[in-house]
Amino acid sequence: MKLLSFLICLCSLSPYFSQKGDSVFIEKIYHEALTEGHSYENLRILCKDVGNRLSGTAGAQMAVEWAKSTLDKYDFDTVYLQKIMVPHWDRGTTERAWIQVGDRKIALSILALGGSVSTEGLMKGEIIEFNSLGDLKKSSTSVVQGKIVFINQRMNDSEINTFHAYGSCSSMRVDGAVEAAKLGAKAVIIRSLGLAIDDHPHTGVMKYENAIKKIPAAAISTQDSDQLSELIRQNKVNLFLELNCRTLEDKPSYNVIAELKGTKKSTEIITFGGHLDSWDTGEGAHDDGAGVVHCMEALRILKKLNYRPERTLRVVLFMNEENGNRGGKGYADWVVSKGEKHIAALESDRGGFAPRGFSCDGTAEQVKFLKTLEPLMKKYELHVFEKGYGGVDIGPLKSKFSTIPLFGFVPDSQRYFDFHHTPNDIFENVNKRELELGAAAVCSFIYLLDLNL
Amino acid sequence: MKLLSFLICLCSLSPYFSQKGDSVFIEKIYHEALTEGHSYENLRILCKDVGNRLSGTAGAQMAVEWAKSTLDKYDFDTVYLQKIMVPHWDRGTTERAWIQVGDRKIALSILALGGSVSTEGLMKGEIIEFNSLGDLKKSSTSVVQGKIVFINQRMNDSEINTFHAYGSCSSMRVDGAVEAAKLGAKAVIIRSLGLAIDDHPHTGVMKYENAIKKIPAAAISTQDSDQLSELIRQNKVNLFLELNCRTLEDKPSYNVIAELKGTKKSTEIITFGGHLDSWDTGEGAHDDGAGVVHCMEALRILKKLNYRPERTLRVVLFMNEENGNRGGKGYADWVVSKGEKHIAALESDRGGFAPRGFSCDGTAEQVKFLKTLEPLMKKYELHVFEKGYGGVDIGPLKSKFSTIPLFGFVPDSQRYFDFHHTPNDIFENVNKRELELGAAAVCSFIYLLDLNL
Repeated sequence: MKLLSFLICLCSLSPYFSQKGDSVFIEKIYHEALTEGHSYENLRILCKDVGNRLSGTAGAQMAVEWAKSTLDKYDFDTVYLQKIMVPHWDRGTTERAWIQVGDRKIALSILALGGSVSTEGLMKGEIIEFNSLGDLKKSSTSVVQGKIVFINQRMNDSEINTFHAYGSCSSMRVDGAVEAAKLGAKAVIIRSLGLAIDDHPHTGVMKYENAIKKIPAAAISTQDSDQLSELIRQNKVNLFLELNCRTLEDKPSYNVIAELKGTKKSTEIITFGGHLDSWDTGEGAHDDGAGVVHCMEALRILKKLNYRPERTLRVVLFMNEENGNRGGKGYADWVVSKGEKHIAALESDRGGFAPRGFSCDGTAEQVKFLKTLEPLMKKYELHVFEKGYGGVDIGPLKSKFSTIPLFGFVPDSQRYFDFHHTPNDIFENVNKRELELGAAAVCSFIYLLDLNL
Repeated sequence: MKLLSFLICLCSLSPYFSQKGDSVFIEKIYHEALTEGHSYENLRILCKDVGNRLSGTAGAQMAVEWAKSTLDKYDFDTVYLQKIMVPHWDRGTTERAWIQVGDRKIALSILALGGSVSTEGLMKGEIIEFNSLGDLKKSSTSVVQGKIVFINQRMNDSEINTFHAYGSCSSMRVDGAVEAAKLGAKAVIIRSLGLAIDDHPHTGVMKYENAIKKIPAAAISTQDSDQLSELIRQNKVNLFLELNCRTLEDKPSYNVIAELKGTKKSTEIITFGGHLDSWDTGEGAHDDGAGVVHCMEALRILKKLNYRPERTLRVVLFMNEENGNRGGKGYADWVVSKGEKHIAALESDRGGFAPRGFSCDGTAEQVKFLKTLEPLMKKYELHVFEKGYGGVDIGPLKSKFSTIPLFGFVPDSQRYFDFHHTPNDIFENVNKRELELGAAAVCSFIYLLDLNL
């Protein structure tokens, strides 16, 4: 009888015991990440030995090889490549812009937008400035025809989360060329999508439409945007622009994948990853070297701590997030063709900053589940457990598995757009502890998903 | 009847109305700080035009003059100086250390600890290493006599909040010289109190005891500490050390004070501040230029928004936090001598990083009050509302007003000890948005204290 009472008592306490066990295991995860972690050194190698790695380039191929060989060393259950075809845009050898004011030639810090066509030699044109894409759309051919459009839209400083400020004006970069071409512009330059006033231009993806003339598109630094705007207020300003970027044939590339097989429900798959490609400037340190090493490290730590997952835990380092999302789309198609069952996915693609928490692109019920994890993670200074975005690469899984929850790792956002898509997105701008805490947060989260979903 | 029902309904909703009003006002505070803020430019001037400013130096005097004249421009109700006498320690002109290994002379990156005596010329001694202050205390005269003690205590990487890691081993710096001298050591060098492995030595305060011989004390960089430890494992290592620092006569200096007078309860005073002095290396950007400009900016914003406080809001920029706390002690004595009533105090002295929240050194009731502010501040990514430390400068108020709650502004701690007391604590290492968000958080908090305490 006494034994029975004890067992009944034990059963009624089991959630407590389980939580306590989780809490101890998460402590081990953080200890490993912060004292014996590989994330920082892996990021150094990816940034310094591989460098930037736009889809289709030699850098991207080196990144695939590095990721595969590094994952191979960790003795996971399986490491493999998934072939995909990716776009291949090449910045070319010439990229320059200046304005002539009286006798003065003032050079602008410029980067062509990814996907832009060439200027076909040196182009000259009068600049016309608009304060937003909306203002440009409201203009007319009679005003814009034959000119170079300058969209000087500022990100909103008073947004607390900088991704909201970015989201509100990134269409200037994506759609600026199409809207300017509709009104007869010969080229478009945009204010860089950054909050800081500095001299780093921010590249990023742009698009054309089939029926609309393709005109060259580039970004100039925020500092130059302010200066240019001031000069335009005073005088008619001509811009000289030369870009010889071009789009080449698609090339084969790869998603890089590693797994720990589930021991109880091996057919249920949890995918987590970041993207291996980056823009062709800087080193892709925060975008998305950080996400790549977060996820590699999360799986490494689980293996190191001899964790035997219930579900199959799969790291996917996606190719081509930046200019096509072929990796994300190809992965979703492929897992469906294999008849796999995907129960959750997480992406880390918001930089290597101090962790704040996780967002969930899912149902009210799934967001409620996310919130149940908060008590266990509060002591690690995680406090964001709310509805929100998942990630570009894991997005296509949603169209294949309608009930799948997508989770996004949420680090602090304040410094992200100081580096995003700039020559300044380098290893030195990632803090070791902030990166390691991100890896620990992702690892703990995947562990909790595996056990509690 | 209908009007009466409406009024009853309105009254029952009054907390809602008040909260909504607060929420709108806090939004204005953030908008001002992030779009028209002065904090970043003020910090630039304090760092670049004044520079470092140890108590008793010309830099400290310049800082007092700059702060007074800057506050004067903001048209507060009153701006004044409170005279205090401060210690005057001078680093001197020579500060060098090296070890000789065979033919190789290896220089160490070194900073004398604040308050250290001189070596009186070049000192040579065999090094004996201890892994902690505790280990040193357990040793004996026979082992230590005549040697130079090297305390190589590491901060604990696995602490999530870096201040906890710092707190666990800062006694190595403060008490190392006394404990080493008790066992007959001729000097002490310590591992810098920082988590990063780099080449920046960290200075900071140390103390002597009257009956114990005063021996020279200095910190070497974490990188050099690791290298030195490795060499000691292999060989007997001699250290050459030369410091000609000295303690001069106390000098007069000032706390710099500005007020907005209360309109309803003007005799009830809320003090908030940071410290104007810094160590004599780097620029005192995070420690505590950030706290200084946070608080100046908080009062400026309230004034700019035409806020008429209920209580008297007083910014105090304290002198001499780093090596004596004469400003904090002098301020507490002075307000008591004037018969003032102090109802709360806040300090910002943990750097200019992204805000996390506020801690309260107070009763359970006061901590409960703090937590009531969380809902209004959650959307600004503030989530720490808990019992904790106030600050060094406001600490002495507690001994005068036993029931006063002391609040500490809590920014993210991850990068603080990369800069703390090093040549690397410079303006360039403060992020504009992170600093501005700190000013907005402090301002909003003071506003809520004024209305709700």
